[in-house]
Amino acid sequence: MAVLESILSENDRIASANQRDFVTNGVWTLNLMSSPGAGKTMLLKRTLAGLGEEVRVGVLEGDITTSLDADELDGFGAAISLVNTSAGFGGECHLDAVMVRSGLSRLPLVDLDLLIIENVGNLVCPAEFDVGEHSRAMVYAVTEGEEKPLKYPVMFRAADVVVVNKIDLLPHLDFDLDLFRSNLTAVNPGATVIELSARTGEGVERWCDWLRTQFGGLRGSARPAS
Amino acid sequence: MAVLESILSENDRIASANQRDFVTNGVWTLNLMSSPGAGKTMLLKRTLAGLGEEVRVGVLEGDITTSLDADELDGFGAAISLVNTSAGFGGECHLDAVMVRSGLSRLPLVDLDLLIIENVGNLVCPAEFDVGEHSRAMVYAVTEGEEKPLKYPVMFRAADVVVVNKIDLLPHLDFDLDLFRSNLTAVNPGATVIELSARTGEGVERWCDWLRTQFGGLRGSARPAS
Repeated sequence: MAVLESILSENDRIASANQRDFVTNGVWTLNLMSSPGAGKTMLLKRTLAGLGEEVRVGVLEGDITTSLDADELDGFGAAISLVNTSAGFGGECHLDAVMVRSGLSRLPLVDLDLLIIENVGNLVCPAEFDVGEHSRAMVYAVTEGEEKPLKYPVMFRAADVVVVNKIDLLPHLDFDLDLFRSNLTAVNPGATVIELSARTGEGVERWCDWLRTQFGGLRGSARPAS
Repeated sequence: MAVLESILSENDRIASANQRDFVTNGVWTLNLMSSPGAGKTMLLKRTLAGLGEEVRVGVLEGDITTSLDADELDGFGAAISLVNTSAGFGGECHLDAVMVRSGLSRLPLVDLDLLIIENVGNLVCPAEFDVGEHSRAMVYAVTEGEEKPLKYPVMFRAADVVVVNKIDLLPHLDFDLDLFRSNLTAVNPGATVIELSARTGEGVERWCDWLRTQFGGLRGSARPAS
């Protein structure tokens, strides 16, 4: 337990350094988490297209191995830094502050408005590591069932916003959206919920609006929400 | 690193004790793993119904918290032991050999033919912990995308059988089954692949047949495959 506390304390020290760099450079930072296959990368592609050239976005892409997701995001105008946890970080199942710091060294922070950190696909461990972010979002696919907020409360409690993805599949599932929302409210009554389909694009504009409001606030400008 | 090696060495010592108990009691044991929401519990319900009263099944149900899955399986004739990793195990994101051992104390091993250990929903960490099982299976939902064998190779390599679930949704997805199988072959050419839908029941009999072959082999009987 002393070992774990020591690891977390070291993590928090580096997370504070990351946070200072974000604030100094005026870049608002989001930690984006989900199960594997919930649709983080597809949502990011939609996000980069939706925010357009008006916003300077960086993506810190966390994966255990491969550059598949980073390659997917290439060509959408974002600065991308890939962090593979299998390369010097023991193949870890999450990003921690040290890994994020290593990826930051390859990003032009001063030129960015918004940095999105795509965490490793995992509904448990990423929520336990502060990486210095301003806010936490999770993507949840309706294919995952209604009860997961109760079964994975640490992640659902950590999220400021829950993106409910794959709503285009609702007609083909037994998923009860009201039950899901009631389970989510039970563990995190304050979470913002945005329903969308990254595949069809339905609802993505509301997500982009939410992002604009957040980093607009950091700038202190009266940036309109849409 | 020394700490991690020490933890894994202790795990392997207890896993060996579990394995001895399985063999002594003549119970064949499967470690069932997947991402959250891939359909392990629904498959288990189908499995218990499909194997019928001829097979004496135990389920060791691993969840971080709640008895939701254990409750789902109630009434299907299996002996069930719930292990919550939040209760004395630090809310861990996987089952290890010690947690499994604690759950075994509540199961009548000598009366069982087959024990299925439903691991915590997580596509990374469970694969790193031997719990003394005879075999490892993973459930993979076609909603999770084709590329995950490449991105989560430790789990896909660890699996003796990959159950490709939710095939009833294929007409509504862009999922390329051939590409998935080719990615799986790249990391684990020897894996048995069984396509099914736990929701509709399509293909479940092949999975039950595979299970019968496995624990039939342990018994040394010429048990027919169906």
